[in-house]
Amino acid sequence: MIYFDNAATSYPKPECVYKEVDRCMREYGANPGRSGHRLSMHAGRIVLEARELLAELINTKKSDNIVFGLNVTDALNTVIKGLLNEGDHVITTSMEHNSVLRPLKQMENRGVETTIVQCDSKGELELSNVAKSIKPNTKAIICTHASNVTGTFMPIEDLGRLSRENGLVFVVDSAQTAGVYDIDVNAMNIDILTFTGHKSLLGPQGVGGFYIRDGIDLRQMREGGTGSMSESLVHPEILPDKYESGTPNTPGIAGLAAGLQFIKEVGIQNIRKHEETITKYFLEKISDIEGIKIYGTSLSKNRAPVVSINIEGKTSADISFILDGEYDIATRPGLHCAPLAHKTIGTFDRGTVRFSFGYFNTKDEVDKAVEALNSITKEVY
Amino acid sequence: MIYFDNAATSYPKPECVYKEVDRCMREYGANPGRSGHRLSMHAGRIVLEARELLAELINTKKSDNIVFGLNVTDALNTVIKGLLNEGDHVITTSMEHNSVLRPLKQMENRGVETTIVQCDSKGELELSNVAKSIKPNTKAIICTHASNVTGTFMPIEDLGRLSRENGLVFVVDSAQTAGVYDIDVNAMNIDILTFTGHKSLLGPQGVGGFYIRDGIDLRQMREGGTGSMSESLVHPEILPDKYESGTPNTPGIAGLAAGLQFIKEVGIQNIRKHEETITKYFLEKISDIEGIKIYGTSLSKNRAPVVSINIEGKTSADISFILDGEYDIATRPGLHCAPLAHKTIGTFDRGTVRFSFGYFNTKDEVDKAVEALNSITKEVY
Repeated sequence: MIYFDNAATSYPKPECVYKEVDRCMREYGANPGRSGHRLSMHAGRIVLEARELLAELINTKKSDNIVFGLNVTDALNTVIKGLLNEGDHVITTSMEHNSVLRPLKQMENRGVETTIVQCDSKGELELSNVAKSIKPNTKAIICTHASNVTGTFMPIEDLGRLSRENGLVFVVDSAQTAGVYDIDVNAMNIDILTFTGHKSLLGPQGVGGFYIRDGIDLRQMREGGTGSMSESLVHPEILPDKYESGTPNTPGIAGLAAGLQFIKEVGIQNIRKHEETITKYFLEKISDIEGIKIYGTSLSKNRAPVVSINIEGKTSADISFILDGEYDIATRPGLHCAPLAHKTIGTFDRGTVRFSFGYFNTKDEVDKAVEALNSITKEVY
Repeated sequence: MIYFDNAATSYPKPECVYKEVDRCMREYGANPGRSGHRLSMHAGRIVLEARELLAELINTKKSDNIVFGLNVTDALNTVIKGLLNEGDHVITTSMEHNSVLRPLKQMENRGVETTIVQCDSKGELELSNVAKSIKPNTKAIICTHASNVTGTFMPIEDLGRLSRENGLVFVVDSAQTAGVYDIDVNAMNIDILTFTGHKSLLGPQGVGGFYIRDGIDLRQMREGGTGSMSESLVHPEILPDKYESGTPNTPGIAGLAAGLQFIKEVGIQNIRKHEETITKYFLEKISDIEGIKIYGTSLSKNRAPVVSINIEGKTSADISFILDGEYDIATRPGLHCAPLAHKTIGTFDRGTVRFSFGYFNTKDEVDKAVEALNSITKEVY
């Protein structure tokens, strides 16, 4: 099986991830931070280790400011609903995922005003369009680092500078980039960085979260047991407890720590180089095939390892179905939970077939996909 | 190591749980319900299987009404914040966990009125005290099935009847009972049942959720990608998607399915019988030791497999520390995230040492704990 659906979840994971999840459950499967016995302390240590590895990856020393939750959607809901108040204005882009757009839509019912800055047909954002959307009541800019539909990068550094100059909170969703592309929350002026553990951070599903800069305060989405200040009916304010209630996904976090360790050992620049090579190779090969339409950033520019295509005369569902059934190649068809991104690139009616690459993909696998696409287009033409 | 901290998280898990989590990650580690390829479909099937097994356990055919999230705290927050509105009154008990009390405290700031019915010093609830708390604006009764501090059962059947007669929504937290004690959401008139996967349901940490009866509607706590209705910026209303956004913890849910299958194969009545036998044996043995104070329900009555004690002259932290360090026995000291329960039983100042038993504990282990407690009390007396 050739797996090109890494933007949905990376697969396979490094062997060390499987092993650490299993070891966590078998050897130190207790509740971290709740009891005082050694098993519980061991579980607590691995959670701390994951926080520290993640803090290091995004260049902060503040590992307590790394918060773990269910997934990046959970994190984005906590951030959007905890940060914005009635009368606030927020700026986002037309390339966002529904994990940003749907909570913002919900917040409109609570009196939050949203400007969705339209990107061009390649999914690219013009900074001046963001700048001119800033109003006296603008509170935040919320933006993906790279589109999950086209891989198009957003101008994070520029947006960070613009946010800082205007006293805005800058929220970046790194779901498609963390673990492959350099993220420096300080140099990039990122105030809140949301992440998912199960994509390019190479951990298991069931862990997402966010980094939050000191001095920014959110209403927590959940209250409950934290293992701290158990005597109080009022939820504690200390980090990370404020945003983490109930038993965490310890095996998932242990697996994420192993994934982060793997990234550190291989080197993020080597991972990036490999994924960029694979992506460029695929783009080069398919750009020669008649009948294939490639979406997003022009081929000469870098994109995150996500490529959306269509073949004239076939639906995206049909193409993915044929790739899966006849060629054993896993891709994702349809709208990819980002309706406005599809409107932006002109594929709202039909979606796209998305190929998304990971560290374990090879040129040989790409060759097989190219061959398959060649055959499928010939069926049509 | 002797593990008596099963009320925090059950450990070890059945071998099939470890194996299924590993198999999920290695063999079908894709994103369920997102893409159409076979790996993704396989992942989707295991999530459905977990829903169906859980539905069967609580005697409902409505597996779509089983919702998965991060943990039971996440579920209780969704329920409490999604159900209650300004001006509503809600009744709960003094034996609740902070996962109920802290969200309710938060809701008081939004104009929700709470009555916390005081239980007696054994942690027992008098039904008439609940009945007389019902007011015209009472919306719901929220109650644990059994206390996590003393194992004391709440009169669920009676409360269900009372709720039904008064048109209230009856919410039961099964964190300490599901998988050991029979729960029938229909016969018991339970409208919403919250559960945790990692305690007596024998799954891994990182999965909790709730069952919700048809006809009860909550505001969802999160919006985002659901893999359904991707074209819409408005979150879908269908179950379970309405309450499930973003990528689920598929390996955790797969492990939970294996835990549920294990319970089904062993038989819940056999699990219960074993845990009750162990608990009674422990209670009998320690009730003879001078200097040990046992809290909760009288010894002749059934309790969930949770026993809280203290030894005169030592703090609960000291006792747990000695049990861990000198005898390799894991227990939990302190307040157990349920401050009012400790006020109720008179241990708010010092907490308790909690012994909580699971299916894999043996009489031999209990003997060792009894021996240890004998020695520790002798040090004092």
